[in-house]
Amino acid sequence: MINELSALRRIEERFHKASKGVELGIGDDAAALQFDTDKLVLATTDSQVEDVHFVKSLITASELARKAVAVSVSDVGAMGGVPRFILASVGFSEKENEEFLDGLISGFKLSEEEFELELIGGNLSSSNKLFIDITVLGEVEPHLMIKRSGANPGDLIYTSGTLGDSALGLKILQNKEIGYGYEFLINKHLHPIPRLELGRELAINRVPTSMIDISDGILLDLERITVQQGTGAKLELMKLPTSKQYGECIHQYSDDEYGLALSGGEDYELLFTSHEDRRGDIQTISKNLNIQITEIGYVTKDRTIEVLNINGEAAPHPNRGFIHFNN
Amino acid sequence: MINELSALRRIEERFHKASKGVELGIGDDAAALQFDTDKLVLATTDSQVEDVHFVKSLITASELARKAVAVSVSDVGAMGGVPRFILASVGFSEKENEEFLDGLISGFKLSEEEFELELIGGNLSSSNKLFIDITVLGEVEPHLMIKRSGANPGDLIYTSGTLGDSALGLKILQNKEIGYGYEFLINKHLHPIPRLELGRELAINRVPTSMIDISDGILLDLERITVQQGTGAKLELMKLPTSKQYGECIHQYSDDEYGLALSGGEDYELLFTSHEDRRGDIQTISKNLNIQITEIGYVTKDRTIEVLNINGEAAPHPNRGFIHFNN
Repeated sequence: MINELSALRRIEERFHKASKGVELGIGDDAAALQFDTDKLVLATTDSQVEDVHFVKSLITASELARKAVAVSVSDVGAMGGVPRFILASVGFSEKENEEFLDGLISGFKLSEEEFELELIGGNLSSSNKLFIDITVLGEVEPHLMIKRSGANPGDLIYTSGTLGDSALGLKILQNKEIGYGYEFLINKHLHPIPRLELGRELAINRVPTSMIDISDGILLDLERITVQQGTGAKLELMKLPTSKQYGECIHQYSDDEYGLALSGGEDYELLFTSHEDRRGDIQTISKNLNIQITEIGYVTKDRTIEVLNINGEAAPHPNRGFIHFNN
Repeated sequence: MINELSALRRIEERFHKASKGVELGIGDDAAALQFDTDKLVLATTDSQVEDVHFVKSLITASELARKAVAVSVSDVGAMGGVPRFILASVGFSEKENEEFLDGLISGFKLSEEEFELELIGGNLSSSNKLFIDITVLGEVEPHLMIKRSGANPGDLIYTSGTLGDSALGLKILQNKEIGYGYEFLINKHLHPIPRLELGRELAINRVPTSMIDISDGILLDLERITVQQGTGAKLELMKLPTSKQYGECIHQYSDDEYGLALSGGEDYELLFTSHEDRRGDIQTISKNLNIQITEIGYVTKDRTIEVLNINGEAAPHPNRGFIHFNN
């Protein structure tokens, strides 16, 4: 059990500092921040709840804190923006101890460095189960901001990285199995890398007509940037990028080779649409950042999503996605 | 049990609107906001957790949502600022139904009007127990911001309103009793009024040298603006403002007449310090806003808090406060 006052003191010691843009940080009623006057402030929040988003025995406190930040800043990257500050609201159950608190603090410190942001406030509560709610404040130039809306029929659809690794890694973790290639997949689950640099580069070059980060499986997130905006999509199953490790392990866990890649969730890759004349620019960005970007389909007029198999026929896709219930 | 997708749709319908300062509201990866360029952005977060901060059988969904917002905006008022936007992160347990969701939505709508702010984003999760985490974004002119630090020895200490009502109201609620004067006290607990207008008026007139909202009992919050900042305080017990209803009911619940007024928590009144030559200005503000403001002691050099009884002697004060564990 964590002593609340000493926890607050420890947090204030570790995070109390004066830095750019922070007029007042942790330790007052509210933080006071300075943003660039010519930019929009981006704000988003995301929760990690014990036994819903994570199981405590499968992730360390430090990994958990870092991941909570990573998945929240991913949303800012998907707008083409830059994260600057976070607030962390933590509900501790009676089972957490001081060591766990230190782990969380370490994870937050790591994420400050990795994502170049600052923890400027938060809240500690008691709770029945552990939860971490992260609010990220970021910024973006108004003319560079990429929304979920904006895709036009004929636009090509792209995804960064590979899909399904995190969901497969979670299955391996849950089965407590050890084997060749497993470490890569487990790491993709515990240590997701939000595509901040890529999102920013795409925005600066005004490449995407719409963009979203894939948090709930590509099918559901594709629906969010097409069907929910009045367009549709054709997705070519054979083009879906999966990793070598995914290909080697998936058959031990599922008969459906593409199930987790389509609907597994927690990929945190960027899904975006773009006019076809920007193909060359996308290749250049991919090469410069050394990040795989794959064309996987195109936007249509009718408000449905079709998944095409190797013969160009519509394949069934019953699992629409792993809904975390985020906005 | 709440259907997640339909819940999101309903929330988007109710809150999706274009208004001043909101470039992009609910429904994208992040909200995009415009703040006044000459102001600091204030950011604070606060949680209400089932069976820690509230019991579901004692509060309606609408009251709960409004109260979660009220206690968070209270922090912005205590900086002399103005709340503008909120993000709401809600964890639903399996016990909540659609009716409950509608109640929450109503409470958020009510708080939008009452506090002149806008819900611009959030997150829905599953959870073992219900929780609501509210992040408030507000703004304040840099030269008007009132911090917790700043009290000088000799400054007088003031509180708005009356103390202990909310804590006594909670006891009455828990005992399910009905009686004369109870309604007033119960209402103070379920429907706290953050002192936004008063905080703003005090700041505009640069009256306080330090200020905080009383969330965890005046003793603990007084410590936060004195001892934790390197000063101390003498508090005169006989001057503590309590309501008529508190005076009439307290003896049925406690032998210690001032216990709940000192340490009860959830008053959400403003506690501030001010140079003695501002007494007249404080009286004017109190009269203009029709809000009781009471001088209750003064700031000292030594880093201790003494509570003085009717004879001017130090009285014991074992209960230091009801720690919600907020920052």
